[in-house]
Amino acid sequence: MTPFWFTENDLEEIQISYAVDRVLHESESDFQTIKVVESKAYGRMLILDGVAQTTDQDEFVYHEMMAHVPVSYHPNPQKVLIIGGGDGGIVRELLQHDCIQEITLCEIDGKVVDVCKEFFPHHVSGLSHPKVRVHIADGIAYVKELPVSSMDIILVDSSDPIGPGEGLFTAAFYRSVARALKPGGILVAQTESPWLPGAFLKGIADNIRAGFQTLRPYTGPVPTYQRGLWSWTLATNAPADQLVCHKERLEGIKTQYLTPALGQVILDIAPPFYLAKLT
Amino acid sequence: MTPFWFTENDLEEIQISYAVDRVLHESESDFQTIKVVESKAYGRMLILDGVAQTTDQDEFVYHEMMAHVPVSYHPNPQKVLIIGGGDGGIVRELLQHDCIQEITLCEIDGKVVDVCKEFFPHHVSGLSHPKVRVHIADGIAYVKELPVSSMDIILVDSSDPIGPGEGLFTAAFYRSVARALKPGGILVAQTESPWLPGAFLKGIADNIRAGFQTLRPYTGPVPTYQRGLWSWTLATNAPADQLVCHKERLEGIKTQYLTPALGQVILDIAPPFYLAKLT
Repeated sequence: MTPFWFTENDLEEIQISYAVDRVLHESESDFQTIKVVESKAYGRMLILDGVAQTTDQDEFVYHEMMAHVPVSYHPNPQKVLIIGGGDGGIVRELLQHDCIQEITLCEIDGKVVDVCKEFFPHHVSGLSHPKVRVHIADGIAYVKELPVSSMDIILVDSSDPIGPGEGLFTAAFYRSVARALKPGGILVAQTESPWLPGAFLKGIADNIRAGFQTLRPYTGPVPTYQRGLWSWTLATNAPADQLVCHKERLEGIKTQYLTPALGQVILDIAPPFYLAKLT
Repeated sequence: MTPFWFTENDLEEIQISYAVDRVLHESESDFQTIKVVESKAYGRMLILDGVAQTTDQDEFVYHEMMAHVPVSYHPNPQKVLIIGGGDGGIVRELLQHDCIQEITLCEIDGKVVDVCKEFFPHHVSGLSHPKVRVHIADGIAYVKELPVSSMDIILVDSSDPIGPGEGLFTAAFYRSVARALKPGGILVAQTESPWLPGAFLKGIADNIRAGFQTLRPYTGPVPTYQRGLWSWTLATNAPADQLVCHKERLEGIKTQYLTPALGQVILDIAPPFYLAKLT
């Protein structure tokens, strides 16, 4: 017998319900409601303000796509800043690359980090590594105050653009990200489901364009995110010929989704139906 | 106000519900219940025995992946047989290739074809083309009675392996498909969601291996199928070096998902988490 279902709404068009064996945690932080449940389909699931953020069983796709794509396309990645990402999954993946010397995680909600430390041991396994510094702070203010040209890669691992994540999708924010990146630096942001309405997706892309000349969207399957397909956008002001895949960086690491063969083409195979919505 | 929701069950672990504006058709054939609804998220949706089969707005991914991958990997594709596929979507895509001379569609349920002719005009637009013959017949018997070495490509566009589709997932069926293919011929079958349990997916792969030496699974996003990611398996007894992409066949056609760049690598980028389940 299933005690109950956790239901997530998608634009009043779709509802997805997960059978839940038990609720492991429920609290209210200064920013959002936080819930951890044990789902039948995907194991433990972190839910913020009623929206599934990460699960034990499908998290690898999202975190591999956020971490390894920018690392493999940057000529010499050393210093990485993550905005959001309090579950630690991206940090864990970045630590597979010896070339990365310093990882800063700036998460607005310290309670998310604490809850993940308790319930998602695999996600957070890199947070105490000596290369990693965790700041509990507002990412928008943090990026604004960074010295000009101080990061090689900035990753925006935000929730959806309503609630605490909203300011991380604005033109002003992307401009200050561009300012904080070294010449040739790379931004990767999560940019929602390609199946969502074009006006919404184009709005996000236009805001990224306020800070960056080159946008290269890519996609991958995340079954617990809206409509099962997700997008990320790699953006840079680097010369166009810089964006080559250093495949060897993908060959030495352990992944379950992103292979070297996929990494090498990932920026060239975004689906036309999605790209058409962005212009 | 939404009149109601259509809900689909996924292994008693997940339920997905679509807001429906109205029901356009409801009937019972000799094989299954048939329903057509107007959904808010994806437009018209064909539902057989309570499971979404195809929709106006996401159908292109599935049909492009079924049609264009085998056509581009076959050295000289001329005669194609489709088992199932009564909505006509694959036929429409195949007709983009001038090299294809004869398309036979063998659908068990004539009522599905009739309903699609009424409600899915874009899907069925190729069914009256002079290259196309439609047989309303049991695909298992049809393939068994085909002359040896009579087809270049056989496509199995079945529903899930319960109900009328069940026999299309057996070792005996795949052996008779292999027998009906010319030397170097290619099978593509839909092989369910990579996120489903390994024992289920391995069972399907093992049955295909009863007829074929070489299996090359590939994946793509279909939001109205379980967990948003789908798999297809290309199988052949051709020498390994035959399987090269004739990219030019993808360059002359209109698609919304499968680009030439993706087609060229599609057999090499199946995710490791999925491939691990098949062996």
